[in-house]
Amino acid sequence: MKLYFAAASPFVRKVHMSAIELGLVKQIELVSTHVSPGKENATYTDGINPLGKIPALEIDDGSIILDSSVICEYLNHLEGNNTLIPERGPERWRVQTGHAIANGIMDAAVSNRYETFMRPEEYRWDLWVNEQWAKINQALQWFENQKSDSMETIDQISLACALGYLDFRFADFAWRERYAHLSLWHQRMSETTAYRETAPD
Amino acid sequence: MKLYFAAASPFVRKVHMSAIELGLVKQIELVSTHVSPGKENATYTDGINPLGKIPALEIDDGSIILDSSVICEYLNHLEGNNTLIPERGPERWRVQTGHAIANGIMDAAVSNRYETFMRPEEYRWDLWVNEQWAKINQALQWFENQKSDSMETIDQISLACALGYLDFRFADFAWRERYAHLSLWHQRMSETTAYRETAPD
Repeated sequence: MKLYFAAASPFVRKVHMSAIELGLVKQIELVSTHVSPGKENATYTDGINPLGKIPALEIDDGSIILDSSVICEYLNHLEGNNTLIPERGPERWRVQTGHAIANGIMDAAVSNRYETFMRPEEYRWDLWVNEQWAKINQALQWFENQKSDSMETIDQISLACALGYLDFRFADFAWRERYAHLSLWHQRMSETTAYRETAPD
Repeated sequence: MKLYFAAASPFVRKVHMSAIELGLVKQIELVSTHVSPGKENATYTDGINPLGKIPALEIDDGSIILDSSVICEYLNHLEGNNTLIPERGPERWRVQTGHAIANGIMDAAVSNRYETFMRPEEYRWDLWVNEQWAKINQALQWFENQKSDSMETIDQISLACALGYLDFRFADFAWRERYAHLSLWHQRMSETTAYRETAPD
């Protein structure tokens, strides 16, 4: 399999960590891929992902699987033990809802990265940036309130990648001071092989 | 069940259409919900979705299910025949990949709605708007190339909602002239009960 990849993307990191946790990473070739607003990459958008986003997974029959959440579910299926995503019942919806909330943190953080770094200064809109920070804080508070110690399911892997992205791109955002449980939990998570081996910097 | 709802959202429409197609709509109470950049809605973000996005589904035990894609999978599970999403095999990944691409059209179109309508004129960035239109066109071309006549799976329902949103918010975007197969397909789709009953206007 080929994973279209950039280490800076939290969505890519989520898939990469998942592949490591599932013991599938040796079956995956990482294909470095550059996508960025305003930079055309026709080879990628014509052949792999018309949305021009990463990650994308190309499986051995040539099919493309998108997006990061579908790829994680595919890898979970391939491994066969439902390690990342419970197969059925209330646990499945609880885990996938947490996964969606962690994805929302990544979306908001990536949106603020575009707004405060890539967008020319004269076109930046403070209200938008503040709105994304509000979403991020509300979602982190939601996870803080869960007081979960789990580190194995896709909601927790995604949360770790979201926090890692905040540390990577917004080092001044002092989330550890506000979310004491998440701070301790992330400390443990950051010692895992999967987290260490996928660090963006 | 309660669906937190606004008729203008293509993601909400996807869930609403799915519920109709699955014969579950009578079990769902629609709860009109206003979320918008810069407008606080603490009741919703504290109690339902910390990301402040719609849709959200509240099921009868009080649990919340997020996001639109997870809700569709939940409803598909509830109905029990895997009508929207094949249970397993290559067909599952093909349908969910199409679903992700249609979601990407919605994301890009909603982003352009924010950029060209909600964002103050002096802060608008043409490069961003053009980038989203490129994504939308590439994704529509991808669907055009599929030449699919199917109307029942979640990829097709999502595509119908994405096209409906383009008609609703960007009536000048003449996609029918460029995508002849999609134009005919959408015409048939627009005659279905589920599509008609969920029209935003």
